[in-house]
Amino acid sequence: MAAASVRQVNIAIIGAGGVGKCFLSQLQQLAARRPSPKLVLTYICTSKKALYSTDHTAIALDDNVSSALASSQQAPLALGKLVDFLGASGAKTVLVDNTSSQDVADAYPLFLGRGISIVTPNKKAFSGAYKLWQAIFSAAEQSGAKVYHESSVGAGLPVLSTLRDLVDTGDEVTKIEGVFSGTMSFLFNSFAPTSGSGGQWSAEVKKAKALGYTEPDPRDDLNGLDVARKLTILARLAGLPVESPTAFPVQSLIPKELESVASGDEFLEKLPAFDAQMEETKAAAEREGKVVRFVGSIDVATKQVKVGLEKFDLSHPIAALKGSDNIISFYTKRYGSNPLIIQGAGAGGDVTAMGVTSDLLKVLAQIA
Amino acid sequence: MAAASVRQVNIAIIGAGGVGKCFLSQLQQLAARRPSPKLVLTYICTSKKALYSTDHTAIALDDNVSSALASSQQAPLALGKLVDFLGASGAKTVLVDNTSSQDVADAYPLFLGRGISIVTPNKKAFSGAYKLWQAIFSAAEQSGAKVYHESSVGAGLPVLSTLRDLVDTGDEVTKIEGVFSGTMSFLFNSFAPTSGSGGQWSAEVKKAKALGYTEPDPRDDLNGLDVARKLTILARLAGLPVESPTAFPVQSLIPKELESVASGDEFLEKLPAFDAQMEETKAAAEREGKVVRFVGSIDVATKQVKVGLEKFDLSHPIAALKGSDNIISFYTKRYGSNPLIIQGAGAGGDVTAMGVTSDLLKVLAQIA
Repeated sequence: MAAASVRQVNIAIIGAGGVGKCFLSQLQQLAARRPSPKLVLTYICTSKKALYSTDHTAIALDDNVSSALASSQQAPLALGKLVDFLGASGAKTVLVDNTSSQDVADAYPLFLGRGISIVTPNKKAFSGAYKLWQAIFSAAEQSGAKVYHESSVGAGLPVLSTLRDLVDTGDEVTKIEGVFSGTMSFLFNSFAPTSGSGGQWSAEVKKAKALGYTEPDPRDDLNGLDVARKLTILARLAGLPVESPTAFPVQSLIPKELESVASGDEFLEKLPAFDAQMEETKAAAEREGKVVRFVGSIDVATKQVKVGLEKFDLSHPIAALKGSDNIISFYTKRYGSNPLIIQGAGAGGDVTAMGVTSDLLKVLAQIA
Repeated sequence: MAAASVRQVNIAIIGAGGVGKCFLSQLQQLAARRPSPKLVLTYICTSKKALYSTDHTAIALDDNVSSALASSQQAPLALGKLVDFLGASGAKTVLVDNTSSQDVADAYPLFLGRGISIVTPNKKAFSGAYKLWQAIFSAAEQSGAKVYHESSVGAGLPVLSTLRDLVDTGDEVTKIEGVFSGTMSFLFNSFAPTSGSGGQWSAEVKKAKALGYTEPDPRDDLNGLDVARKLTILARLAGLPVESPTAFPVQSLIPKELESVASGDEFLEKLPAFDAQMEETKAAAEREGKVVRFVGSIDVATKQVKVGLEKFDLSHPIAALKGSDNIISFYTKRYGSNPLIIQGAGAGGDVTAMGVTSDLLKVLAQIA
C-alpha cells in the first residue's frame, strides 16, 4: 500500500513559548532523522506574530525559525481562517497546539471536522465542559482525524497511553491515585519529608517560587485547579462523564483570608500567619506515623473524584516520592492488589515536548 | 480515506496455553466491542492440533473455540505452509504468536516478508542471535508489515513502548536498571525484606515453586537467562547491537555443584546445603544498611550490560518493591537525575495477554 512518491504531512504550530521552543527543536531533529513521511512546516504563530505563505510554501525547519517568527510582520490568522488555510492545502495536516489557550481548544472540533489531526499538551480542551470533550471526539471519529494529548497529564510520562491501553484491552480500572503536580510534589516532599522535620510551609512556598517551580502567582498552583483538570481528563478516559473540573471536591491550600489579596507577592508576604494550620496538619499525620501529601484520586466504582490532602505510610510509594516527580497508580482488576505505577518528572519543557512529539509519531504512523 | 465497506483483518493464532487462553478471551471481547475493523479468526493451533478451512472461512470467535480446537482432527500447518496459507487470503493479516518457540520465532522474517504483521510475547525472536533481529526488522521495513512485542519484557507493563518513545523522540537513554523477573522479585522480597529478617533461601525457593511462581524446574529461573533475554531486548532497542543473551556477564544463582543434578526436585532437596552462601550475601548487604536484589542493568554509554546481585539502600525504589512486581527505571538526558519508572506485575496470563492485545490494537490502527 506504500505510495511510490515520498509521503508528505504538513505541520502547523500554535505557540512558541517554553514547550513550543523545545518541541520545535525536537521536530527539527525528527525531520532530519526520518526521511519519510516528509514533514513540512507550513504555519507557525505566537499570540502576536505568524509565519506562513498563502501558497503553503514550506518554512525551513532550521535554527532560524524562532528568530524569523520574532521579526515577522505577519499577524496570526483568526482560528476560523486557520482552519480554512490548513484545510485548503490538500495535504494531510497535523496541528500542534503548544498553548494553554481556551480559545484554541474551543476550535478543536472545527480543525478535526476538517480532517486536521491535533497533538497538544493543552489541558483546556479535555478538562473543560464535557460538551467540548464530546464535540472533539465525535468530530475526530467522523473525519478520521486523530487527536492525542499525552502531555496534558504528567507531561511526557506514559500516563494517558497506559490508561487507554488498560481500557481498550478490556481491563477494569477500579481506582487511579497519584501526585499530579510537580509543584505540589516539591512542596510536600520538602515540607513533610519521610525523614527529618522539613521546613515552614510559607518558606517552602517562597523557595519553590524562587526556583521557578510555581506559577508567577503561587495561588494558581495552591488552588488545586491544575490537579483537578488532570483528574477530569483521567476520569473521562476511565469512562466517567465528569462535567467539569469544578464538579467534584477540590481542596484549596489558599487560606480563605488570602483568596482575594491583590497580588502573588502580597499573598506570600501574608502566608506565614497561616503556617500554624499547615503545621498542625503535618503533626496530625506524624502522630499516626504518616506524612501528608496533596493527591488526586478517582474511585471508578463509586464515581468519586477528589483532590486534596491525604495521609500516607512512610513506606507508601506516594510518600517516598522525590524532588518534583509525579506518581500515578492504576488499580485494575487484572493488576490486582499491587497497582501499575508510572513515576518521574511530570513538568518541564523538554519532557512535555517529548509527549507531544511521541503523539505526533503515533499520528504519523496512522495517517501517513 | 475510510472505505465504504467494513474493513476486515484476519487473525491467526499459534499457541493456546496460559497466555493464549487469556488472549483468546480478550480477543473475543474486543471483536464484540468494536465493529471495525472486523476481526476474522482464520487459523488457530497448538503444537498438536489446528483449526482452519482451506478457503479461510471465519472460525466463530465464541466460547467454543478452545474445545473445538482440543477435539479437532486437523494437524497444524508447517510454518512455511502457514505463511503461504495466510499470504493467500488476500486480506490483511496479523499473526499472534503466543508460544515461546524458537522455531516460530525463526520464521518471523518469512511472515513479515509476506506482509503479515506479528504481535507476540515470545522473547526468543528478539533476544536470540542478532542476525535474526536484523532479519525481522528489515523484512518488516521492506513489506510495511508491523511487529510488536511489548509483553516480551515486563508483560503488559508499558516498558518497550516507553523506551521506543524516548528513543524515537530523540532523548538520550543513559542507563536502564530494574527487576525484570517476577520470580526473582518474589524470592528476594521474601528472603531479604526491608523490614524483618526474611526466610532461609532454600525455603523461599520451595515456597515460590509451591505457589507456582517458578518454572517447573526452578533452575530455569535461577540461572538468570530469562532476565538476560529481557536485557538483550532492551539494550538493542536502546541502540546497542548485543550479540546474544550470553554475550555479557550473567550471574547464576545455581550453585556449581547443583548445575547437573538430574531433576528440579533433586535440586530443591540439595539446595539447603548452600543456604550459608546466600545468608552471607544477605548479611554483607545488611552490614552496609542495604538489601540484596537480583537486577539487570544497561549502561548505554559504556555499553555494559549485566545481570546479577546488587545491594540497594532501603529507601531505593528497587528495595521497596512488593510481591512479585517488576520495576524498570529509565535514566535519560531529559529526565535528569530522577529516572522515569514503570512498576507493577510483570508476569501472569491476563497481564501478558493484555500487552499482546494492546499491540494488536496498535497494529490495527496502522494497517486497517
